[in-house]
Parts: sequence; structure tokens; C-alpha cells
Amino acid sequence: MSGYVSDAVIRRLPIYYRHLRELEQEGVAQISSQDLGERMQMTPSQIRQDINSFGGVGRQGYGYQVAELRDHIRKIMGLNREHRIVIIGAGRIGQAVASYPGFSREGFRTLALFDADPNKTSPAGNAIPVFPVHELEARLEELNPEIAVLALPAPAAQETIDLVYRKGIRAVWNFAPVDLNVPQDMTVVNVHLSDSLYILSYLINQKNG
Amino acid sequence: MSGYVSDAVIRRLPIYYRHLRELEQEGVAQISSQDLGERMQMTPSQIRQDINSFGGVGRQGYGYQVAELRDHIRKIMGLNREHRIVIIGAGRIGQAVASYPGFSREGFRTLALFDADPNKTSPAGNAIPVFPVHELEARLEELNPEIAVLALPAPAAQETIDLVYRKGIRAVWNFAPVDLNVPQDMTVVNVHLSDSLYILSYLINQKNG
Repeated sequence: MSGYVSDAVIRRLPIYYRHLRELEQEGVAQISSQDLGERMQMTPSQIRQDINSFGGVGRQGYGYQVAELRDHIRKIMGLNREHRIVIIGAGRIGQAVASYPGFSREGFRTLALFDADPNKTSPAGNAIPVFPVHELEARLEELNPEIAVLALPAPAAQETIDLVYRKGIRAVWNFAPVDLNVPQDMTVVNVHLSDSLYILSYLINQKNG
Repeated sequence: MSGYVSDAVIRRLPIYYRHLRELEQEGVAQISSQDLGERMQMTPSQIRQDINSFGGVGRQGYGYQVAELRDHIRKIMGLNREHRIVIIGAGRIGQAVASYPGFSREGFRTLALFDADPNKTSPAGNAIPVFPVHELEARLEELNPEIAVLALPAPAAQETIDLVYRKGIRAVWNFAPVDLNVPQDMTVVNVHLSDSLYILSYLINQKNG
């Protein structure tokens, strides 16, 4: 059913998912490519091409079943199963990730945070333990997480990702502002917060220039 | 000199900037499109095409002057001047933005944070005031910021962006997990943190599937 899914479409998957969730909450049961396109600021044909490429099915004249399409995207994004997470760095970003309510709803379960400062505590209202970072290696064996979140300063990031790789982790969500060198079989998604601020600055500059 | 700059190239501008900064720190004075491409995992011809499109200049057989190209990108991204910022929401994300050291280095000056909770305080070590959010309208007139950062819960985001628009702000960096409706002359860059986690989850799922 589904063909090649381009990087651009992969980047749009969570956006489709968000809009379909919102539509469900609004009580919309089905939607045309026209209406979905208007909502997402895309053309109807681009919508149909995207959805077709990742195996979603619409019906001529009826459009898409919202719940069905949402469920399909949920499955291909692997959100229908549990993901075990550890967060390395219990500063503001690490704590924000640990306490983001949307993640646990989608199956992301934070097992522990790690921090160089042994006095760091877990965000108020959750019971996730914070371990000293020197216990990381031993704790990873015990916890056996699938995803490591790097929320630590840039200088510590490379040695930490090397360590988690050695312990068998193959997926990293990286907030450290540095591009990391990893083996081919390690999947890293970087969040460079400043990038999008600079893009905003670029767009302002073009408008004013 | 410069032609049409595509969305894809705009998204890559901060990445070029980051690599050029790193090269400068490593003491590299010039770099070929070949070497820059290897570093950025792009082809040399794509590098040349990108840089050409935003008006950067290389020399046959010598490549690019690192400092000169970095400075050019800095200017087109508007990082060579001050940007006055207010942050609405002094939770973990708002505080992380307020205390991110890279932003002030690039000219982003946080004037104030606002929060519904009048007991919220500024992150340790900085002197940025935290005002109650009911003072937002009056304070915006006094502070006259260029950029509003929305770091508040989704339900409050739309009315807040409407308010900052009325007070003349035309640039918003939005962390609230919702797509906002704004007039054409308002520039919004959204940071949907969960999107990139879902993309990581998708990539893991494909690899394991």
C-alpha cells in the first residue's frame, strides 16, 4: 500500500497527527483533503500524496476517517507501544521533558533522570528518581531503556552518547547544542532550540529589510 | 548576488552557522565545499548551491573563508543587531529560554518574564524581572519588545498571541503545543517539542519493523 516516505513527509507526520487529534476532540469524524489542506496550509493534492505515501486510505467523495487515519499514523510512529526513556541532565530542559504530560499519554515512560549534581531533585509532582551521573553505566543495565534523552551541556554530550551506545542504546533525543558523531546504527534526532529562534530572526530581517 | 532562498535552505541556515562557528573555534580559516559537505552530510554541489542562493561567495580551488561566510550568515539572520524579547510563561521552558547563554551572545536580550503565578521568580543568577501576567498589556507598551516567546499552556496561547498582536508585536516564538491563528503580517515559528520525539519514534519503528 505505502510507497517511499520522504524526509519531508516524515517531518510532517507529527503535524498530521496533531491536527487529527484536534479534529477528533472537535468531534469531526471525517475530513476531505480540501479541508485538511486548508487547516494545514497545504494543497489538497499534496495532502493526498503525503497520506498515500505512508499508507493512509481515503474514499473518493468522502475523504478520510479521522479516527482511522489518526490510528494509522499512531501505529507507524510507534506510539501504540511503550518506550522506556532515561533523561541525562536534570536541569530545566531535562525536567521539562520529564514533566511534559503529553509524553506519557503517548507511551513514553521516563524511568530515571541522571545529573552531575547529586542534590538535583525530580520535578514536583512526579516520582521519577534522579540518580548521580556516575551511576549511569550501572543503572542502564538495570533499567534497560530504549531511548536516552541528552539534556546536558555540549562538552559532556559526545562522551555520554558513546557510553549509552556501549550499553546498547540505539536511539537518542539530543538537546545538547552540538552535532554528535555516532555509528550508523544509532538514530539521533537533534533539538537545536536556537535554530528556530534564528529562523524567526531571519524571517523578521527579510520582512524589515 | 543572491537568488531565491527556499524554505529548506532557510532551515539549514542555522546549521551552516553552527558549523562555521565550530570551524572558527577549531582555527580553520577556509574550507572547501567538499569538506564542509562531509561535515554536514551533504554533497559538495548542494553546499555550493545553498551558499550561492543566500549570497555567500567562494573562490574556485580555495573554497570559503570561514569567518567571512559566518559573518555573512550572521547578518542575513539579523544576529548582528539586538532583539528585545519578552517571555510569557515562567515555567521550565520559559526559564530555560531566559537562561540559555547562547541567546544573549547573539543579541537576544530578555527584558522580562510574565507568569500567572505571582510567586514565580527569575532563574538563579540572572536579574530578569518576572511580572504577573495581568500586567502584560501595560508592560508591553513600556518595554516595547520585538519578539514574544510563548511558553505557556495551550489553552492560554491564542488569547495571548491576540493580545501581543494588538500591542504591535509581529514576531512570536511559540512553545505552546498548538497551531495558532494569526494575521498575515505576524511571523510565528513554532517549537513543537513532541514532534521530534515522535520522529525519533517513527525512525526506531521503521528500523525494527
